[in-house]
Amino acid sequence: MSSSESAIDFGLLSPGYAGTGAFERTCDLVFGRAMLDVESALAAAQARAGIIPQDCAQTIADVVARFELDTSVLATGVRDTANPVVQLVVQLESAVAAVDERAAGFLHYGSTSQDVLDTAIMLVSARVLEDIGQQLGRCTEALLGLIERFGDLPAAARTLTQHAVPTTFGLRAATWLRLVLDGAERVVAVRAALPVCMGGAAGTLSAYAEYASARTAGRVSATDVVPGFARELGLTARTVPWHGIRTPYLDLVHAIAVVTGGLGKIAADVLVLSRTEIGEVAEPGSPGRGQSSAMPQKRNPVLATLITTAARQLPAQALVVMQAMACEDERSAGAWHTEWQPIRECLRLCLGASSNAALLTEGLTVMPERMLENLKLTGAAIVAERLAAALAADLPKAMAKKVVTRAVGNGAADGAAVLATIGSITGREDLDIFRRNPVELFDPTRYLGQAADTVQEVVGAAPDVLDALSRMSHL
Amino acid sequence: MSSSESAIDFGLLSPGYAGTGAFERTCDLVFGRAMLDVESALAAAQARAGIIPQDCAQTIADVVARFELDTSVLATGVRDTANPVVQLVVQLESAVAAVDERAAGFLHYGSTSQDVLDTAIMLVSARVLEDIGQQLGRCTEALLGLIERFGDLPAAARTLTQHAVPTTFGLRAATWLRLVLDGAERVVAVRAALPVCMGGAAGTLSAYAEYASARTAGRVSATDVVPGFARELGLTARTVPWHGIRTPYLDLVHAIAVVTGGLGKIAADVLVLSRTEIGEVAEPGSPGRGQSSAMPQKRNPVLATLITTAARQLPAQALVVMQAMACEDERSAGAWHTEWQPIRECLRLCLGASSNAALLTEGLTVMPERMLENLKLTGAAIVAERLAAALAADLPKAMAKKVVTRAVGNGAADGAAVLATIGSITGREDLDIFRRNPVELFDPTRYLGQAADTVQEVVGAAPDVLDALSRMSHL
Amino acid sequence: MSSSESAIDFGLLSPGYAGTGAFERTCDLVFGRAMLDVESALAAAQARAGIIPQDCAQTIADVVARFELDTSVLATGVRDTANPVVQLVVQLESAVAAVDERAAGFLHYGSTSQDVLDTAIMLVSARVLEDIGQQLGRCTEALLGLIERFGDLPAAARTLTQHAVPTTFGLRAATWLRLVLDGAERVVAVRAALPVCMGGAAGTLSAYAEYASARTAGRVSATDVVPGFARELGLTARTVPWHGIRTPYLDLVHAIAVVTGGLGKIAADVLVLSRTEIGEVAEPGSPGRGQSSAMPQKRNPVLATLITTAARQLPAQALVVMQAMACEDERSAGAWHTEWQPIRECLRLCLGASSNAALLTEGLTVMPERMLENLKLTGAAIVAERLAAALAADLPKAMAKKVVTRAVGNGAADGAAVLATIGSITGREDLDIFRRNPVELFDPTRYLGQAADTVQEVVGAAPDVLDALSRMSHL
Amino acid sequence: MSSSESAIDFGLLSPGYAGTGAFERTCDLVFGRAMLDVESALAAAQARAGIIPQDCAQTIADVVARFELDTSVLATGVRDTANPVVQLVVQLESAVAAVDERAAGFLHYGSTSQDVLDTAIMLVSARVLEDIGQQLGRCTEALLGLIERFGDLPAAARTLTQHAVPTTFGLRAATWLRLVLDGAERVVAVRAALPVCMGGAAGTLSAYAEYASARTAGRVSATDVVPGFARELGLTARTVPWHGIRTPYLDLVHAIAVVTGGLGKIAADVLVLSRTEIGEVAEPGSPGRGQSSAMPQKRNPVLATLITTAARQLPAQALVVMQAMACEDERSAGAWHTEWQPIRECLRLCLGASSNAALLTEGLTVMPERMLENLKLTGAAIVAERLAAALAADLPKAMAKKVVTRAVGNGAADGAAVLATIGSITGREDLDIFRRNPVELFDPTRYLGQAADTVQEVVGAAPDVLDALSRMSHL
Repeated sequence: MSSSESAIDFGLLSPGYAGTGAFERTCDLVFGRAMLDVESALAAAQARAGIIPQDCAQTIADVVARFELDTSVLATGVRDTANPVVQLVVQLESAVAAVDERAAGFLHYGSTSQDVLDTAIMLVSARVLEDIGQQLGRCTEALLGLIERFGDLPAAARTLTQHAVPTTFGLRAATWLRLVLDGAERVVAVRAALPVCMGGAAGTLSAYAEYASARTAGRVSATDVVPGFARELGLTARTVPWHGIRTPYLDLVHAIAVVTGGLGKIAADVLVLSRTEIGEVAEPGSPGRGQSSAMPQKRNPVLATLITTAARQLPAQALVVMQAMACEDERSAGAWHTEWQPIRECLRLCLGASSNAALLTEGLTVMPERMLENLKLTGAAIVAERLAAALAADLPKAMAKKVVTRAVGNGAADGAAVLATIGSITGREDLDIFRRNPVELFDPTRYLGQAADTVQEVVGAAPDVLDALSRMSHL
Repeated sequence: MSSSESAIDFGLLSPGYAGTGAFERTCDLVFGRAMLDVESALAAAQARAGIIPQDCAQTIADVVARFELDTSVLATGVRDTANPVVQLVVQLESAVAAVDERAAGFLHYGSTSQDVLDTAIMLVSARVLEDIGQQLGRCTEALLGLIERFGDLPAAARTLTQHAVPTTFGLRAATWLRLVLDGAERVVAVRAALPVCMGGAAGTLSAYAEYASARTAGRVSATDVVPGFARELGLTARTVPWHGIRTPYLDLVHAIAVVTGGLGKIAADVLVLSRTEIGEVAEPGSPGRGQSSAMPQKRNPVLATLITTAARQLPAQALVVMQAMACEDERSAGAWHTEWQPIRECLRLCLGASSNAALLTEGLTVMPERMLENLKLTGAAIVAERLAAALAADLPKAMAKKVVTRAVGNGAADGAAVLATIGSITGREDLDIFRRNPVELFDPTRYLGQAADTVQEVVGAAPDVLDALSRMSHL
Repeated sequence: MSSSESAIDFGLLSPGYAGTGAFERTCDLVFGRAMLDVESALAAAQARAGIIPQDCAQTIADVVARFELDTSVLATGVRDTANPVVQLVVQLESAVAAVDERAAGFLHYGSTSQDVLDTAIMLVSARVLEDIGQQLGRCTEALLGLIERFGDLPAAARTLTQHAVPTTFGLRAATWLRLVLDGAERVVAVRAALPVCMGGAAGTLSAYAEYASARTAGRVSATDVVPGFARELGLTARTVPWHGIRTPYLDLVHAIAVVTGGLGKIAADVLVLSRTEIGEVAEPGSPGRGQSSAMPQKRNPVLATLITTAARQLPAQALVVMQAMACEDERSAGAWHTEWQPIRECLRLCLGASSNAALLTEGLTVMPERMLENLKLTGAAIVAERLAAALAADLPKAMAKKVVTRAVGNGAADGAAVLATIGSITGREDLDIFRRNPVELFDPTRYLGQAADTVQEVVGAAPDVLDALSRMSHL
Repeated sequence: MSSSESAIDFGLLSPGYAGTGAFERTCDLVFGRAMLDVESALAAAQARAGIIPQDCAQTIADVVARFELDTSVLATGVRDTANPVVQLVVQLESAVAAVDERAAGFLHYGSTSQDVLDTAIMLVSARVLEDIGQQLGRCTEALLGLIERFGDLPAAARTLTQHAVPTTFGLRAATWLRLVLDGAERVVAVRAALPVCMGGAAGTLSAYAEYASARTAGRVSATDVVPGFARELGLTARTVPWHGIRTPYLDLVHAIAVVTGGLGKIAADVLVLSRTEIGEVAEPGSPGRGQSSAMPQKRNPVLATLITTAARQLPAQALVVMQAMACEDERSAGAWHTEWQPIRECLRLCLGASSNAALLTEGLTVMPERMLENLKLTGAAIVAERLAAALAADLPKAMAKKVVTRAVGNGAADGAAVLATIGSITGREDLDIFRRNPVELFDPTRYLGQAADTVQEVVGAAPDVLDALSRMSHL
């Protein structure tokens, strides 16, 4: 088995994103190509600023366009120099030189490894964020559809695993939707802010400036190149070098954490709701999906499991990026290097999770009857809060609560029995609660608070976010 | 030793914030009081909306103002009910009832534990963020002062622990300043967005709505109370309940992570720069500070150590909060509960770090001579990048780099020797490099790239941030 | 509010251990006292080795015994010197000097802050591990009791949230028991290995050696003191200083992680099994436990929630300790300092979790009828694996599985219907499955595999562990 | 670009192990093959127990030996079923059936996905631990060599970044060696304990037992197969299923964390010691290693940077595994799935780090002169602890320390000056310190405490560990 053959990966151990395309969108070749694109964009921008000849920039662009990385050499290079750029530049330089030796002299001109790699990471991140945005758009549409169809269904709300008060499926889905919108808003904002990195060997732009000055007789400064460089790549022109200012990565990882955590909440709910004993929703079925290798009857909540996996793994990756912010020196020995793989893994997990969430929300089966059955399971107990409120018209609130606690016992008593018990405990017949319409009082579907208003508020926020997502994906 | 005596804490094992006041600003009593304030604010807002009598709200406010928590009972309560609110309400209710039994009936009116605790956490966070903002303001002023006094000092930039190219102390301090500004901007933004939490038992505002409707004959809805509730507490009116939408906590923790990570970078640099062999800066001295229990001569970089501690501990706390976002059900069994202590610890570590950073930056001793000595240590090697650039006028860039590598050897060669070696390696006397002014060419203080421009750009951004910080602390 | 008053903590935000005594067993005063004990033990050991006068060691011991720490001064001291020992020694020294100035000269004799604090942490850890061991002993006894009473009850096993095959409550409880035993074994082993730390200023034992040599005319070496020092404190005599070798802390934290993770699994199961719709177990009830502040009917699974909280928080603390292993220099600036609080938090969370787990397992209510009802919910589907195995006698295994998948459909079909469907799908009447006793074939309680054997194997391992735990707590 | 081409990885963003072979030893194909080996071993063991025909097991083994996985299909399979085993069995089954349909019926006989994947992970872990052991053996030999050659060299010990007291290079290297030995001991112990996983669909071994019973007329039980299964794979026979008892993974990850953390400490020291201003050691040079893409003169401490990267990333991976211990149900939806990739990443990072550490320790250049120069930098201050001890013969210890603090000032004073200052501060001429031989008193190389003894103790422990490592690699 040759080295490169043995290193083929296909997500076998990464259920958080296997099969979603997240791997392919962020594999080593993608990052390798992004680094090449960065070198090409830098040359183009320097050419436009008059620092290097236009034809040389063109040659570099041409060579980059058809360049094939020798990946096994690159891995060795990483071990030799602690980053992949040194070896990549060596390879590219020789390819450019083979076409035009003069052009090779203008490659990576004044640049440093960290500029190239940080900018490449931003470039890949930009593309993946756009993909994530698309998937979140799908989730948004799907959840709007679910709310439209099933929004009014009453259901048992659960707190600390126990039936609490009635709610609606709509409010549950609106919670999911609000999470998706929260994530989408942060993705859009952070995508728009992703900067290029241009600092030179140690943040002074030293060689960039040296070359710029020498070749334009001082007319052009190194930072003049930044806007063009950024424009080539669809990134933001940041003139303050950030080798030692890692805020852009923290902002990126934050947006990703909000998206993935939010989808994780949806998945956590689906796992509960699709339990055999609960069965209020079911994952979309498709041939092969959800099978067990042992049990013929199984239809496992696979997508929710995959999203859960991503949501559980992501914060640990984010932590590594956060810790790297406290780096020493102008460029650090180790802190910088720890960021790359966790950032990639964040992108993968988030894209995987949002892609799986799109499938999940688009195909979610909702079981109105099971919701209703479950809602009735706890009988009068599920409106115990309401009974206590009604009773509080006549009794001290704390006492009202105690009376109701005893009256509803361990659940499932019917209304008449509960009222009778209240009567016998309190020894009073004059309570306001006895004058209420008992059917209405005990009907869980008439104790939904402001669920419908909240759903409308959340739904009303969706169009703006969808619009922003759609603008982002046309960048 | 009684239970409460034994539980006195003073930060013994928390050097990240011991002695900074961060403990006192966030101790159990502070959170206990914040919960009381929340109950009082809720009553006030409900009174203003006409849901409860004004005099009852007043009574609640009066009792809260002089209420003394029985802390040992509270701890037992947490174990009994998995949160401190149930027991706190019991205690407060009985205190209110002692004054006016009717008022006690309007306490915690329609509310639930999570509303009270989440809002209380936001309230404490708001105050602590304001404190952090003040400290960041001090850091900003101090760094501006350092830049003014020492900004032009040349120094050796270090990458991967080795001398790289020349830089200025000003650029180093501007990097620190930009980090402080990044943190401050995020603190200001997140402070302004901290929401109240009002969702009722399970997010439908059920009992709030029930009471509002009953007592105002349907004129007032539960969400009408939110703006008043928020105004009482100086928080944002959010009408969508967020029991299951934990984005506000992630945003909070993100801002804190940026601040603390940024200060951690400053500390990491100070630890390097104050090493015995480097000695370019020293921590502020004061009687007792920096002592060792063993070694009389020691003056340890204590503040940088304390900040480093905070920066290393914080991401782990943030991770716990991030993971809790994927919570199940309308209110979760465990996910919610894991958030409280890590959020408090984040507040403590960040306030501790920013308070220590203010001391550090205000008192930092800068040693210009040591900077210059160190800069000279590596002789011509520190401008090797420039030599390669100069040589690239005549030779292919890759070859120019190789020639310089050999010529500067392992550092410290002087300019004449380097030029001679270049001549003998290349066998050419016609190179442009030989026509350059050698004094200028080899002078590290004349190879500072655009350091000064970058410093100006960063400094120019400070006033707006200072202004925003100052407005925040007047809230 | 005075500083010390404001700093009273009672676990308000730490449901993982509030009210369990874990706070009191590990509060600042406990660590402060442990440090005093370490100073006293060092003096005693040095006296026994002839390095310091016996009466001075006795004086130190006497003063330590009645010494009252001034806690507010200590916090300031931590900020001044980055550790609490420097200030603590100053206070203690002056107290000893007040009795006998000569004795004060032999306090902290040759020692350094890290020796005192690391040893004190080990001392507190030893005591807390013994407490944890006691609680795990209670859990073991309780689980043995549950297995004895309910071990044979059949129940539905669940995988990926769905009914899988039948199991027994005994096997479930045996899984819990094996986790408790795993934790207990590691606690016993790591307790026995906790070392004292004795390295002096920088690991050479320099001043210890200097004093030992000077005062015994070279007869006694510094390491000769180690065994006596360890014996005084009930710790292990380790002569290789471990200021830069943090394995003992990683081993400690590993044992704690196994305990807490294992209890977390028990809690995770209890949360599922006590869901309203499942109801196979219920938490022990007691007045006040499990109440909601909003809903009168609630009986929340509080103990499982508390344990879950601990299990979710602990790994983040462990991570900080792990990362601190990669510390720089003979003693580090920051890495060491980050260890203290996370180690304490690990001890607290683990003691809290095991104490709550003891309550939970001792009082767990088991509902045999609900188990049986749930088991019947999925009818023939829960033995689908068995049907496929039976069918595989005549059909290719893959085909057998497909046939069964279709035959059991979406659950709950009865045996006769399933057999009929198999007949019609396969078109064969000669299959072995038709000759099996259908009652037995479809009876989930007769498809329990080797559950009983496994239970016996786990139960059989308990006595040795109980024995080891009991020996540990008599140290 | 086809899907499989695009997914080629070569460690581009993983400097912690790029180019070390760690990727190749743990890539998807390796895990895929390990799963195939597990299926083959299970069949072999079942054949030996008389449950399936010998020739079928042989056919399975033959097909496995030449089986080529279709990787793109596998990735889709992971997304469909949340694990790679279902699809892998489908592929393998059809390949076996192509040879002998009867044999296909005995493949994965009674088994479940988790049995196959958990056992495969253990199998790969076993091999990688053996590799790690070999690298640690190399580190041990290298460090023993360094100690032999340079062990007696005096050097400045540093605490909190500042010169503390003298030490020896030998003690520094012995600290490194002890860390390597700690890691090696844990690797050997955990390797020996790695278990097979055999639990069937839900831990009852249901189908295993069903088949065993049916095909041996009850003579053979499912657990009888375990020892043979384990022997085939070189793993430990564990009869208690551990689907819900994740201790084996925690133990594995703990051993890996100790190794990687220990190597991280070595790297942290090398980064400090190879700083331009310190220069006491240098990394092994080789053509290309340590280059910068910008600066011709750079020789970066690349290996230490790579090891640091691994040490910083590993704890976050370990955390994910720790958190997964608290899994719900007989087999969980998400917890199990989060373990796989972090465990693989742990193996990779640890093998990468130990392989890089072997290179680093074998080639480390030690600079005795720089050590001595640095040691002299702080003059009398570095023996200040000794001076205080000497002075304590006549003055109270606290006062002695104060006098010395003033006398040594800010370092570098020579002995005579210090003595004179002590005289003038104390106003006494009769102090014992004035009678000491000043050359000896101030000579840092004569204040080395028990460094040499400690070195010998650590060195003495190496042979047993080397022996155990060598036995492990012959398994």
